[in-house]
Amino acid sequence: MAQANIGVIGLAVMGSNLARNLASREGNSVAIFNRSYQKTETLLAEHPEAEFVASKTYAEFAASLSTPRTALIMVQAGKGTDAVIDELLGVFEPGDIIVDGGNALFTDTIRREKAVRETGINFVGAGISGGEEGALLGPSIMPGGSDESWVTLGPILKSIAAVAEGEPCVTHVGHDGAGHFVKMIHNGIEYADMQLIAEAYDLIRRGTGKTPTEISDIFTEWNKGELESYLIEITAEVLRQMDASTGRPLVDVILDQAGSKGTGVWTVQTALDLGIPVSGIAEAVFARSLSSKPAQREAAASLPGPSSQVAGDDESFIEDVRLALYASKVIAYSQGFDAIVAGAEQYGWNIEKGEIAKIWRGGCIIRARFLNRITEAYAENPGLVALVTAPFFVDVMTKTQDAWRRVVSGAAQSGIPTPAFSSSLAYYDGLRADRLPAALVQGQRDFFGAHTYKRIDKEGTFHTLWSGDRTEIESVGSSH
Amino acid sequence: MAQANIGVIGLAVMGSNLARNLASREGNSVAIFNRSYQKTETLLAEHPEAEFVASKTYAEFAASLSTPRTALIMVQAGKGTDAVIDELLGVFEPGDIIVDGGNALFTDTIRREKAVRETGINFVGAGISGGEEGALLGPSIMPGGSDESWVTLGPILKSIAAVAEGEPCVTHVGHDGAGHFVKMIHNGIEYADMQLIAEAYDLIRRGTGKTPTEISDIFTEWNKGELESYLIEITAEVLRQMDASTGRPLVDVILDQAGSKGTGVWTVQTALDLGIPVSGIAEAVFARSLSSKPAQREAAASLPGPSSQVAGDDESFIEDVRLALYASKVIAYSQGFDAIVAGAEQYGWNIEKGEIAKIWRGGCIIRARFLNRITEAYAENPGLVALVTAPFFVDVMTKTQDAWRRVVSGAAQSGIPTPAFSSSLAYYDGLRADRLPAALVQGQRDFFGAHTYKRIDKEGTFHTLWSGDRTEIESVGSSH
Repeated sequence: MAQANIGVIGLAVMGSNLARNLASREGNSVAIFNRSYQKTETLLAEHPEAEFVASKTYAEFAASLSTPRTALIMVQAGKGTDAVIDELLGVFEPGDIIVDGGNALFTDTIRREKAVRETGINFVGAGISGGEEGALLGPSIMPGGSDESWVTLGPILKSIAAVAEGEPCVTHVGHDGAGHFVKMIHNGIEYADMQLIAEAYDLIRRGTGKTPTEISDIFTEWNKGELESYLIEITAEVLRQMDASTGRPLVDVILDQAGSKGTGVWTVQTALDLGIPVSGIAEAVFARSLSSKPAQREAAASLPGPSSQVAGDDESFIEDVRLALYASKVIAYSQGFDAIVAGAEQYGWNIEKGEIAKIWRGGCIIRARFLNRITEAYAENPGLVALVTAPFFVDVMTKTQDAWRRVVSGAAQSGIPTPAFSSSLAYYDGLRADRLPAALVQGQRDFFGAHTYKRIDKEGTFHTLWSGDRTEIESVGSSH
Repeated sequence: MAQANIGVIGLAVMGSNLARNLASREGNSVAIFNRSYQKTETLLAEHPEAEFVASKTYAEFAASLSTPRTALIMVQAGKGTDAVIDELLGVFEPGDIIVDGGNALFTDTIRREKAVRETGINFVGAGISGGEEGALLGPSIMPGGSDESWVTLGPILKSIAAVAEGEPCVTHVGHDGAGHFVKMIHNGIEYADMQLIAEAYDLIRRGTGKTPTEISDIFTEWNKGELESYLIEITAEVLRQMDASTGRPLVDVILDQAGSKGTGVWTVQTALDLGIPVSGIAEAVFARSLSSKPAQREAAASLPGPSSQVAGDDESFIEDVRLALYASKVIAYSQGFDAIVAGAEQYGWNIEKGEIAKIWRGGCIIRARFLNRITEAYAENPGLVALVTAPFFVDVMTKTQDAWRRVVSGAAQSGIPTPAFSSSLAYYDGLRADRLPAALVQGQRDFFGAHTYKRIDKEGTFHTLWSGDRTEIESVGSSH
């Protein structure tokens, strides 16, 4: 009876497509299971070529798998995942492998991995990016979990992953929750990338008066150069789309209130815990929530704007926007990789940064040509402390920063909101600053809260007696 | 034996000072308790005028209090608080009141209040702001908890609170965790306010070459006008301070790496959960964490900066910075109050926004003249959807926005990092925008993830068949 080498549980669109993807690859035989059998029947009927091995119960499902049994759970993240795990623990044996392919919060994955490991069964949280199409044709896959599970799982996941420059877009990211953590950061970067593109579009639209169709052509052109990426490509598609019922550009009839699914929020909250400034991602998340406040926006619509717009030559302005987008994008990735480094340190994961950039080159939403440059940067210098300081990216900054400054400056003067562009520039100027006014902040904190400060010229922790004679004392013990 | 109407547990600086403050007010008799009796003895010896009622055990402590017993816990937030609560539950009776005056996370306070309430005892989380000096002379106090507890607690807290324009800086904020929630937002606003002041200082320093002493004079002057506030006042003091050992301005020998205690992080994390953009606070938190990355900053020190600095007339530039600071500050408070409104809705608190502004006028770190304007704004229109849209603040924006734009624009051109100034301006321009590029973001999300979108011209949820014939279909059920 045991004939399938991999099983899929949960046959909604993502699960069905992954199951079909698996079945289409040489050497795989795929068991399927869904809570309601109707979905299983539909999938069997619609895709006889897949030769799925279907089961009605978890016991049958387990019996249909060769050992070590390997099951990929594709159900709504949350309680559903825990329920399926419980069922599998009843029918699986030590050495078997349970993979959660949903968008779980990485701390839940850490908790689940710990609990499941005690039974001798492996638990792997795997981030899967690429949407429905990626699931069917080849996603980018970010598995965590044990080394033991990777031995079995590696070849299976490699068989279905996207391929970029001959290499499958999957790697063993690290233990327990490392895979879902990196997938979360991927999504955070995706938020920043989308917001930056949206700001670039808005700047060109409002700055030059060009139509969405004309701007679509600009994005198509940009996609031939160093900005080449899936998001730039689909932006051109979206801007080109005309609405059938009104004859207007679709982007002008879509309600301008952006929704979200939570991974952007998680990324920023996690980065805050780790002490990593991910301002580009945070501004992107905030821009979406701001857009979704119609009552506030209506009340604020008559607030005063600038008396004049900055005008200039269209062609050079558009090139400035392109360079500003490139520079801001480098900062978003630099911040995202900082969060990965900090997460790896905090949770004891051994994450190869260059490998992460590699597996993002295909299948996933943020796939882009310039990820090769990130891989190269970490290959040249594995101890790189900030991506933006790698020689290639220093060159990018040298080439882009004047344009970036003109764009941010002009947007402020013209009243066009560019939260992610300007936040990225402020971060860049903060990072390279010789002295920061953080020294004044430390002085204020010492004044009102006796929080103490350190000095540039000697070791120790100091406090000025602000409400006394204002002499300085050395503070013993920790600050309070 | 029962003779004290209020007890204080935990006699570190904040606890001792609050105990002394309580004892100094007509009608109060103060019981004191500390885990190690030595601290109790010291306080007794140093302050005989307080006539403290000291105890060595929790049982004695309880017996020394008149009913309903009222105890203020001033220990390190966290497990220490839970331990003291457990002890008090063993010796207190239904109707008694336990007050946690530490900086607890409001969700912990909600949990504790729920657990303690089941015993019939009242639990009140109270935010206390003002540092050591405020504790002694009069803090701003933000208590949550039940209406029953407020009957007893109100007069006691009013007796020790700061007084602003004849009114004590304390009000019953709302039930359970409302007090600690509002204190958390207070601290978040404090982060933004400090960062904005630091940016103003940095702009003037780098933009005009003035010395810290000269800038101190500018802040002293500013403190006579609409920016009058405690933080502006102490900034002038800090900038005026000379370092005895080097003869240099103290601010130049303080290490420029700002620390933090966690409430700023909590504010941003909570606002993210509530879907409220608090970009000014987030940028302030990120600016501190960026400053505390010496290895990254060193590696980035040679990154390219602007080829030219924006120059102009010093006096008008300084006035521009003052106006930009004012405008950005309004945004920080507007965002903070949005978070309070959202928190009240989420947790079922009935919070009077105008009262919150009132109790922040004295005692606390962000005390400022312009809080009266906030109180007035909510008095005029209790349903105000965004603080910045109140007539007074619209006038402020009208008066300040051109200067604000010049400052943000000039900073970008000059390479001076102003994350909070520029983020606040981008938020302002986003809020008043007629159309936002969020429509493009929705188009992208629909393209790669079939997340659907809404239209401006009809009800419903729609999806374009991007990988099909690109017609639009109405989507049934929720988006996925």
